[in-house]
Parts: sequence; C-alpha cells; structure tokens
Amino acid sequence: VVSTGTEILQGLYADTNAQFIAEQLTSLGIQVVGIYAAPDDRAVLESTFRHVASTCNLVICSGGLGPTEDDINRDVFAAIWKTELHRDERALEMMRTRFLTRARGPMPESNEVQALVPTESTVLYNQWGTAPGFYLPARDGMPALVALPGPPKEMRPMFLESAKPLLENLAGGETISITRTVHTYGQPESYVNECCRNLFRADPRVALTILAKTYGVDLRIHASGPSNAAAQQLVRQYEEDIRSRLSPDEVYGADEQMLHDAVAELLIANRLTVAAAESCTGGLVSKLLTDVPGSSAYIKQGYVVYANEAKISVLGVCAETIDQHGAVSEQTAAEMAAGVRELAGSDFGIGVTGIAGPTGGTPDKPVGLTYIAIADKHRTRVQRSQFLGDREMNRIWAAQTALYLLRRRLLRWNASAAESE
Amino acid sequence: VVSTGTEILQGLYADTNAQFIAEQLTSLGIQVVGIYAAPDDRAVLESTFRHVASTCNLVICSGGLGPTEDDINRDVFAAIWKTELHRDERALEMMRTRFLTRARGPMPESNEVQALVPTESTVLYNQWGTAPGFYLPARDGMPALVALPGPPKEMRPMFLESAKPLLENLAGGETISITRTVHTYGQPESYVNECCRNLFRADPRVALTILAKTYGVDLRIHASGPSNAAAQQLVRQYEEDIRSRLSPDEVYGADEQMLHDAVAELLIANRLTVAAAESCTGGLVSKLLTDVPGSSAYIKQGYVVYANEAKISVLGVCAETIDQHGAVSEQTAAEMAAGVRELAGSDFGIGVTGIAGPTGGTPDKPVGLTYIAIADKHRTRVQRSQFLGDREMNRIWAAQTALYLLRRRLLRWNASAAESE
Repeated sequence: VVSTGTEILQGLYADTNAQFIAEQLTSLGIQVVGIYAAPDDRAVLESTFRHVASTCNLVICSGGLGPTEDDINRDVFAAIWKTELHRDERALEMMRTRFLTRARGPMPESNEVQALVPTESTVLYNQWGTAPGFYLPARDGMPALVALPGPPKEMRPMFLESAKPLLENLAGGETISITRTVHTYGQPESYVNECCRNLFRADPRVALTILAKTYGVDLRIHASGPSNAAAQQLVRQYEEDIRSRLSPDEVYGADEQMLHDAVAELLIANRLTVAAAESCTGGLVSKLLTDVPGSSAYIKQGYVVYANEAKISVLGVCAETIDQHGAVSEQTAAEMAAGVRELAGSDFGIGVTGIAGPTGGTPDKPVGLTYIAIADKHRTRVQRSQFLGDREMNRIWAAQTALYLLRRRLLRWNASAAESE
Repeated sequence: VVSTGTEILQGLYADTNAQFIAEQLTSLGIQVVGIYAAPDDRAVLESTFRHVASTCNLVICSGGLGPTEDDINRDVFAAIWKTELHRDERALEMMRTRFLTRARGPMPESNEVQALVPTESTVLYNQWGTAPGFYLPARDGMPALVALPGPPKEMRPMFLESAKPLLENLAGGETISITRTVHTYGQPESYVNECCRNLFRADPRVALTILAKTYGVDLRIHASGPSNAAAQQLVRQYEEDIRSRLSPDEVYGADEQMLHDAVAELLIANRLTVAAAESCTGGLVSKLLTDVPGSSAYIKQGYVVYANEAKISVLGVCAETIDQHGAVSEQTAAEMAAGVRELAGSDFGIGVTGIAGPTGGTPDKPVGLTYIAIADKHRTRVQRSQFLGDREMNRIWAAQTALYLLRRRLLRWNASAAESE
C-alpha cells in the first residue's frame, strides 16, 4: 500500500488512506506486507516503486493523479511498469461534463492530463471527483497495480465500488477477516474496559480493541475464520456478548450507525417528531439530527437561542427564571425544552444551555457546565453534566449527550406511552 | 521513518507515530524521504531495513521493543547494522524499579530482554514505560538509527526529551524550517494552481504544496533558511505573492484562521450582527458562526426551517412563493434571508435552501442545487450553486459558501455604507 504526497512526509497529516486500504485488504484475506509513503519526487518515487514491486504481487497506490505540477505518478507508473499512457475518452468526457455541470465554465486544458491511463489497464471511473483510477494486471514479473486518487472522498468510494470487486476475484484467499465496531456512549473508557475485561484475550481468532473517540467509546472486533460465515459467526457472538455486558442505553450502534442515526431510526419507527432549542451548541444538535437522509420525517424546525433575549422572546422562557437561576441552569434548560416543543408542535423538545468556554466560567458555574433537558407531553427531565474539554469538545459532548438522553427516552417510549393510557 | 507492528498493516489504526516523527524532523530541517510500516515478521523487517538503509542517512524506528515473541526488532537491527547486543544495567534497574513501584511485584524474567541494546549505541532511557530506546551513530555505510518503543505515550516524550537534542546536533542546527498554510475558498484547485503556477519551483528553499480540502483549497508554504528570521521572511514573501495573485475574496486566512473566524473578525470589527435561516444545512451555518469564542457579540439567534410550514410560519416566507417557485428557489432563499434578518433584528440575514440529497432531486432541480441569500438593509442577493458531493459534502459546501458570500459583503461594507449615506 503506497500513499504519495510530500505533505505526508512533512507530517502534516496521518496517512488515513493507507489505514482504510489496509483494513479493506485484510478483510479480503489479502495480507498487507508493507505500507509506504513517498514524496512527489520523481527519483524517490521510482526507487520506492522498484523496491515495492519486488516485495509483493499487488500494489495499491493513492494520490498523485491530480492536474498539477506535483502529480507525477502516472509518468512514474509508465516508467516502472514499462507501459504507454493513452487518453481515455470516456474519462475525459466525464471530467468535462463535471466541469460544465458545476457551472464553473469549461475545463482548463491543464486538467486533460488526468485522463491519461496505461494502455493495458482497466479504467476505474470517478464519479466523486475528476481523476480516474485504473487497474493494471500483473505481468512480466511486475505486480498488479491499482492507482486511485488521493482525496479520501474520492478514493474510498472508488475503492469500494470499483477496485474491491476486482480484488475479490484476485484474492480467493483461505482466511477471511471481518471487522465490526460497536459504539457506546455514556460511560468512560475505564468502565467499558472493565465490563469486557476477560473478552480481550479469550480467543486467538478474535482481536478486541477499545478506542476512546470524540463521539464515545468504541469496541472493535476483528475476527478471522476459514470462511466468511465462520468469521461473521465469531463477530456476531462477540457483539452479543458485549451487548449483554453493557446496557442498551449505552450501546447505540455499530459500524456506520452513529448516535444520530440510532435516534432517527427510533423517531421514524414511532412516527415521532423533535425540535431543539440550543444555546451553547449553537445549532449542532439540529445539524446532527438533519445529517440523516429523510430527516424531514421527524424534524421540521429548530432554534438557536444564543442570547438571553432570544431565549425569552423566541421561546417564551420567563425573564424571572433567567434572573433568579441564570441562563445556565436546570430551570432555564427545562423551559427551553418545553418552550421549543410547544412552539414547534413536536412530540419532543430538547433544551441545551451551558458554558462552552474558553471564557464565561465562574467558581459556581465553571466552563463545561451544561444542562440538557428533554421534554415530552408527560414530563421534562434535565441532566446536569460537567464536561472537561475545550470549547469544541464541550460542544460536541453536549450535543451527543442530548442525543443520548433522547434515545434513552425513546427506548422507553412504548412502555411509557402504554402506561399513561 | 519506520513503524513496526502487524496491527498497522491490518489497518487497525492510522500510523500517527510516523506523522509525529515526520513533523518533528521537518521542523528540525531534516528532510523525510520515506515513511514505512512493516509487520512483526523477521524476513520482511530485514528486507525493509536493507532497502531503507540504502535511501537515507538517518532511520527513526518506533515499535517492536516489547518483551514478547512478536518484538524482534533488536535482533533485526543487530543483523542489519552488524552489531552486538549487550545488556544495559541502568535500563534493567529502571525497569525493575518500575515494576516494584507499580506494585505488580518483581519483574518477570521475560522482560529482561528489553534491556538489550547495541554495544556502540547511546541508550535513551524510558521514564514513561519499560523498554529503553537507543541511538546508533552512522558507520560503515550504514545510516544512523534511532529506535523508540511503539506506544505513543512513551515514544513522544522520549523523542522530545532524548532523541530530539541528539538530532539537533546531527542536523547542525543550521537550517530552520517554517510552514504556513494559506486558505482560499470560491475557486477550484485547478484555478488556484494556474494562478500560482510559476511559484511551485521558483526557489529551492521553498516547497509550495496545493491541497484540496473539504473547506476550500489550501496553499502550504514550507520554507527553510539559516535562521528563524530568514525562514519567516521567505514565508512572508510567498504569502504576499500568493495574495497578490488571488482576490481578497478568495484568500480568507492562514493557519488556524478558518472562514468562520475571518467572518467573525469582520463582524466584530464593524459591530455588526447576523442571523441564519437554514433549510438544507440544518443548523450548520449557526454552528460554525458560534464555533468562535465571543460569538455572542454578533449572533443572538438562528432558525432551522427544514419544513415548508416552518419557512412560512416562523420566517414569514409567502406560501405563494413556495407554491410558484418551490422551496428550493432564488425567491424562497431571498425571503428567508430577509425574513430572518427582520425577525432577529440583525444587520445581516442568511438564507440557505437546497437539495442535500441523496433523494429529493428532479431533472430540473438536481441533488446539490442550492440557493444562498445574503440580506442587509440595502439589498438581498442570491447565489445559485450546484454542488456535486454527497449529502455531507453538499451541506458543508453550502455552509462554507454562505460564509464566503457574507465575508465578500463584509469586505465591501465600509465602502457601501459610505455610499448610501
């Protein structure tokens, strides 16, 4: 797996493309024997590819296919793999159309170089950006080569949709590995670690890893078996075991399913709607709730009430409440949640008020203090949280906690709805 | 820079050790010509180090110094660098003490292997974990070698406290490198590239890199000089040159200053306020505007009007406008911006309405079509954009474009305010 780009060598970012590709190859049963990053320098690239070609029978390279001076990979591939480049007309047409439909006028001539691919290759067309990739089969003692553009937003879907099916045929491997990541929220890493302690080395076929992320604590299950079914079975077994050790409130999803997806699913299944009134999160809760396609089913509107006047005039929070208890208080959060619920005519109202920082804290109400209220037709409940991050993290945790509390309420919704009838 | 550990090759995490080391070396004026990750496999490690040794005069390796079967790096180093290993008594003593004070009882015998280092090396003692590292000077055509343990909590402080001072001497401390990133928005990568074409290889002391990011196109200036002042001078000169080739609308900031920071600065300097009415962005514009500490000076409230009813009832958009032109139209965007400006009593109103996708597109109004309006007391102007990303990217670009258009208006504010009086 080779990533090219001088900025990686300067340490300007971690090589996440290599991680993604290595994970995908491992899951296909293809053993990754080396990961390389090389600068946009012709001599170094040539020496790197010569060495890489001698160590394996498949090379996956990302980056270096742009239209600029820096992007010299296609020439280097041609030299090392001893092949000619030719212009792929379909790729050129796709690029031109892309430029025109983006209404930025015709494509500059400098971009035409991006349509050059090795003559013997299968072109991997790019629907997510301009440069096409390609697959050059192994020949003359040279390994097969897959070349993909560097931007992750292009590389990832192109790998999954075009390269992966080709590699699946190539692999035909004996051992299949599968990775699944279980997401939790609401408990610290040490608690999750303790719950799963004797699982970490229980089975040599399974590697279980705990990871503290900004959005919660993840447990990654990496299982290997002689077949896809066997590996899947191991993963399922571990996931069930993990879920039995934590509460359903805490385990909200796996893999692509984030907390806002889990909340959306419950809202849609129960035909319920929600609206948020946000102070310190400034729109982040509504943004997360509308990240999900089809979110118009459960969210119609939302309010950012950053100033006290806005809390009063827009949401109908009592001026006396703010005077007596402060804008960051249990009482204000409760009135915000109840107020937005009424204003929006939604089933649930969310109220978030806190001190994100870096300034605005006092000994009584330090930076990170946040009140989050969830209102429904029966009751309004408020949770007090003390976050210990910077402004950005405090805002993310406040929004995640709001979603966590709403999900907890939704998990009990059927029971409580039945109860009150 | 070499990282060892099979888990990296399986894609279980991105190689952040390599990033850290590459960034540090770059700042010391040491050019990184390759980054490698290799599994805990003797044959692969030997072949990797043989190749690496032929490409450079300094190798920094992290990982593979643990007490387990997997950790074979010290044997591989001895074989490739043709040196003997001997037991460092001070390192052994430190390890034993660590075990005792951590109340795990005496150190297992298996850990003793960790005290083995090459005879000719300088030991880098480890106060943050068990395994010591070492520095082996260059000799017999072999490059210098720095070996460090893999856990970032040990590697990072050991690099900074022990390895870095040695490398500063090695580098001669003659060359200082400085990096500055200039941010642009509103033009594609190819345009920015064209504007700066003859800058890319103009001066061997400066590496200029162009990077397409989700939030815009960056130009990274990496300049080296004999002193901090000399490097700073080069960076300043390049930044001025870049700014003269693009418009002030397009170059909004550098390094930590993002588009919302630039907008915040102009709003605060002119004592102006803003409010956003967001449909497809669902709160993201308000979220970005409140990312900035002190944002309460210029933003008091904001509205998410996801449903048509909300656009009408909350903002006062005419039902006929939506009927005749659609919710995603120039007219609706304009009424949203004017409506939110009036409702919030702010100087500026932002209206954003578009089709984020993946569904909801029609031949006439495809996914990604977005209208963004900026209203002030004089006028309301609307821009039509056709974004071609997925839901997430279309929403990010819509929010960034709203901030870009607001900044453009703010840059002309003084002139236009004077004009109208």
